[in-house]
Amino acid sequence: MTINEIKVYLEQYFEQVELVGNGDNTIDGPAKIDDAVEGNVSFVANDKYNRYIGSTNASLLIVGKHAPIAKYSDRLSFLKVKDPYTAFVFVLQRFSVPQVIAEPGIDPTAIIGQNVTFGRNVAVGAYAVIGDNCDIGDNTVIGPHTVIMAGVIAGKDCCLYPGVVCYDGAILGDRVTIHSGTVVGADGFGFAPQPDGSYVKIPQIGNVEIKDDVEIGANNTIDRATMGSTVIEKGVKIDNLVQIAHNCTIGENTVIASQAGISGSARIGKNCMIGGQAGFFGHISLADKIQVAGKAVVTKSMHESGQILRGMPAQPIRDQLRQEAMLRNLDSMKKKLDALEAEVRGRSGQ
Amino acid sequence: MTINEIKVYLEQYFEQVELVGNGDNTIDGPAKIDDAVEGNVSFVANDKYNRYIGSTNASLLIVGKHAPIAKYSDRLSFLKVKDPYTAFVFVLQRFSVPQVIAEPGIDPTAIIGQNVTFGRNVAVGAYAVIGDNCDIGDNTVIGPHTVIMAGVIAGKDCCLYPGVVCYDGAILGDRVTIHSGTVVGADGFGFAPQPDGSYVKIPQIGNVEIKDDVEIGANNTIDRATMGSTVIEKGVKIDNLVQIAHNCTIGENTVIASQAGISGSARIGKNCMIGGQAGFFGHISLADKIQVAGKAVVTKSMHESGQILRGMPAQPIRDQLRQEAMLRNLDSMKKKLDALEAEVRGRSGQ
Amino acid sequence: MTINEIKVYLEQYFEQVELVGNGDNTIDGPAKIDDAVEGNVSFVANDKYNRYIGSTNASLLIVGKHAPIAKYSDRLSFLKVKDPYTAFVFVLQRFSVPQVIAEPGIDPTAIIGQNVTFGRNVAVGAYAVIGDNCDIGDNTVIGPHTVIMAGVIAGKDCCLYPGVVCYDGAILGDRVTIHSGTVVGADGFGFAPQPDGSYVKIPQIGNVEIKDDVEIGANNTIDRATMGSTVIEKGVKIDNLVQIAHNCTIGENTVIASQAGISGSARIGKNCMIGGQAGFFGHISLADKIQVAGKAVVTKSMHESGQILRGMPAQPIRDQLRQEAMLRNLDSMKKKLDALEAEVRGRSGQ
Repeated sequence: MTINEIKVYLEQYFEQVELVGNGDNTIDGPAKIDDAVEGNVSFVANDKYNRYIGSTNASLLIVGKHAPIAKYSDRLSFLKVKDPYTAFVFVLQRFSVPQVIAEPGIDPTAIIGQNVTFGRNVAVGAYAVIGDNCDIGDNTVIGPHTVIMAGVIAGKDCCLYPGVVCYDGAILGDRVTIHSGTVVGADGFGFAPQPDGSYVKIPQIGNVEIKDDVEIGANNTIDRATMGSTVIEKGVKIDNLVQIAHNCTIGENTVIASQAGISGSARIGKNCMIGGQAGFFGHISLADKIQVAGKAVVTKSMHESGQILRGMPAQPIRDQLRQEAMLRNLDSMKKKLDALEAEVRGRSGQ
Repeated sequence: MTINEIKVYLEQYFEQVELVGNGDNTIDGPAKIDDAVEGNVSFVANDKYNRYIGSTNASLLIVGKHAPIAKYSDRLSFLKVKDPYTAFVFVLQRFSVPQVIAEPGIDPTAIIGQNVTFGRNVAVGAYAVIGDNCDIGDNTVIGPHTVIMAGVIAGKDCCLYPGVVCYDGAILGDRVTIHSGTVVGADGFGFAPQPDGSYVKIPQIGNVEIKDDVEIGANNTIDRATMGSTVIEKGVKIDNLVQIAHNCTIGENTVIASQAGISGSARIGKNCMIGGQAGFFGHISLADKIQVAGKAVVTKSMHESGQILRGMPAQPIRDQLRQEAMLRNLDSMKKKLDALEAEVRGRSGQ
Repeated sequence: MTINEIKVYLEQYFEQVELVGNGDNTIDGPAKIDDAVEGNVSFVANDKYNRYIGSTNASLLIVGKHAPIAKYSDRLSFLKVKDPYTAFVFVLQRFSVPQVIAEPGIDPTAIIGQNVTFGRNVAVGAYAVIGDNCDIGDNTVIGPHTVIMAGVIAGKDCCLYPGVVCYDGAILGDRVTIHSGTVVGADGFGFAPQPDGSYVKIPQIGNVEIKDDVEIGANNTIDRATMGSTVIEKGVKIDNLVQIAHNCTIGENTVIASQAGISGSARIGKNCMIGGQAGFFGHISLADKIQVAGKAVVTKSMHESGQILRGMPAQPIRDQLRQEAMLRNLDSMKKKLDALEAEVRGRSGQ
């Protein structure tokens, strides 16, 4: 693919793509700026990486409008765009070789229940098991060894990687991606304590609903609701090993990093960012656009949108950072107090 | 099902069930009190939800003996019981449709090893693999794609959901439920450090024993013992993504919330409650009925039963809450100290 | 096996193995020192367990050169070695019965892609699925239900337990062990935020490389790199439920305990020990031989090798322990301050 062809490709997404240098050179793939070799395309989206512009071996860099490239434009070529990071993502997409999760059609070893309907162009992999009364949309791919229990509805263009388990009654929108080992719809953790110390199981008769454009990583657990639905709204992105408990609602476009745990009946707003290993007490609401730092523990509902929370218990980051600084200074505070006490006591002759 | 029939059903479990209102109305299913529509049954078990009694659209509420229902008994019916929460759980059980994990019998695609014995009425799902010398009790269900290695013994009425892996030699009691993706009996994490910095693997030749009435959620890991057994006692309930390391003993009726990690050789007492993401140092003992708050880190054995622990390191909750409060006040403490210092120094002419 | 035979066996590994007592007795298996019965071998590697020497029912103890055994040598036998712990590990290895993960050969139900090459003596279990263009080395065992996508290379003597998923392009060295439920090579968590709050997926076109002698526990997630490789160096040992994000490098012989999470692009040094539930901010470097305590959060790169870190944010353990002690004393510090203030104010007539 020539640099000129990459320029044309990016013009689908950006109003202005400016070429500096030779557009005829061939680009054979993307690379990180410090790993790049001749023939590679890379990018600089942040001024602090400008120092790499002079040293990279890439043949093409995608850069911002004001990148300091003048000195180097005889050595390599540049494409200037408004958002070089996203532009490079599109270039990555262009060069990525599609994975074959399952060959088109239904593998002869797949076991399909009764009354299952398939859209056009579905792929169901080896040893996949699909329960009764499921409905699988156009172009959806069900990986080998994936198990879908009865009554699951999946929309168009979904991709369930090998070894996903989807319990009965789950509803998936369009373009939902679920990576291996993730369990959707296992029972919520509900048991009623009895006077003798034992527990009676609370049947979990609800389900899980996952809306359009959600991507869910590997080995997550998303529990079905006790009654009603656990809901993952449109555009949510979930990393690996995340727990979403029963009856949660995760708002549109919220992202959740690895090993975070969202407790039962939590309502997370839209466009939130939940850091890795963060935790939540149960029945909490989070407003929109809240950022929760890694490892933070949200112990109560947070109603002010857009704030950044950190610590355990989580508090606004400014308060938390001040508290952490004071903690580091506790030692000198103690010394000051001791000195003052000695002075006061000394003066009074004690 | 009529309200009168629900009354009779609950009288199996409760000495007194008092009907207020019309018992002939038909109930078609349970619902949360704020989601309920006509024909639904719901419940109020806590005074703070009394405000919903006047606004719910449910046709039947299960309530406590002293619930303030007088004003509403012309609008909907009530069943008064001693423990409305548990009563509602029984109602949920009554209305829940049993999941079909696997059809009765042994699926022709299941692979069964040599010398395997099955009780009556066993169900083994598609592509399940059962190793040599296993013994599977009456009514036990092995889901599709579940793998049971050699020498596993499972009691009666167990249910292993699709995609469980049970390593060799595990022993399961009666009525054990294990959800998808859980791995029982993988090697404990034991390696002997060598002078050159490398490690020699410590063979893990023990097993896992899971006693009666245990329920284990999805994607947990319960490691086999180095020697002897990792033991999950009767009635234990484990959420999702929990780690139980080698040689642990988890006491009867203890519940463990999601993403908690129980380190090697820990001995957790009976009727404990371990919060989500809690952690433990190794070789720790916990007395009975201890509650460990979410995210707490238990760094030493705790011998006083019934206490509530919180924080890292975990301490009695009163101490921890006081400490958290003082932390929030560090700022004002520092100001006070600075003011006092200025006053003392000022007075002495410094 | 007689004690004399065990002595000869250990002489493969240790220069000096001294027998005290009768070498003709038969040993039928290893046991923990307090569980041991007649015929068992156990060990004492730490003086604090010396008290068991007099009470154990074992017939043979492996002990250090200077263990106080004189009083007991008529009751049981001893083998004295330099490193009794490692010696006992070798004894455990000698007595451990090899697990049968899969029978030798390729199970007729396994599905093998095109252009797959197998070394000698490979075992591929029931329902395993191996994609196109894979290369599996001598003596490697692929468990039942394990899925290996296209283009995976595995060396000699590897063992993938049942239910592992290995995405396309992963490269495994020799003697790599991976336990059930672990997902190798799922997409890294990368999404480019867009002005409307939605995200564009960043294709993850890199892979995972796992070097020789690595052991990986159950239900871990090791993500593929965005570009280039996520690298697990030689001799690394990983427990269960651990997250290794995209583009990480884990240095040689580093061990990572359960539920730790290593964020994207982290570079962990050699011979580090990462405690359970520890967390890392992204793009962090750790020098060699650093120990990170359980639950610690490493928020910045740490360049001094050999240090021990604890707390959140993680700091050198001495600082952290002093800080924790001061925290516990905050109460008395506050009282002191209040008393001093009262004294100063009182004296000045306020």
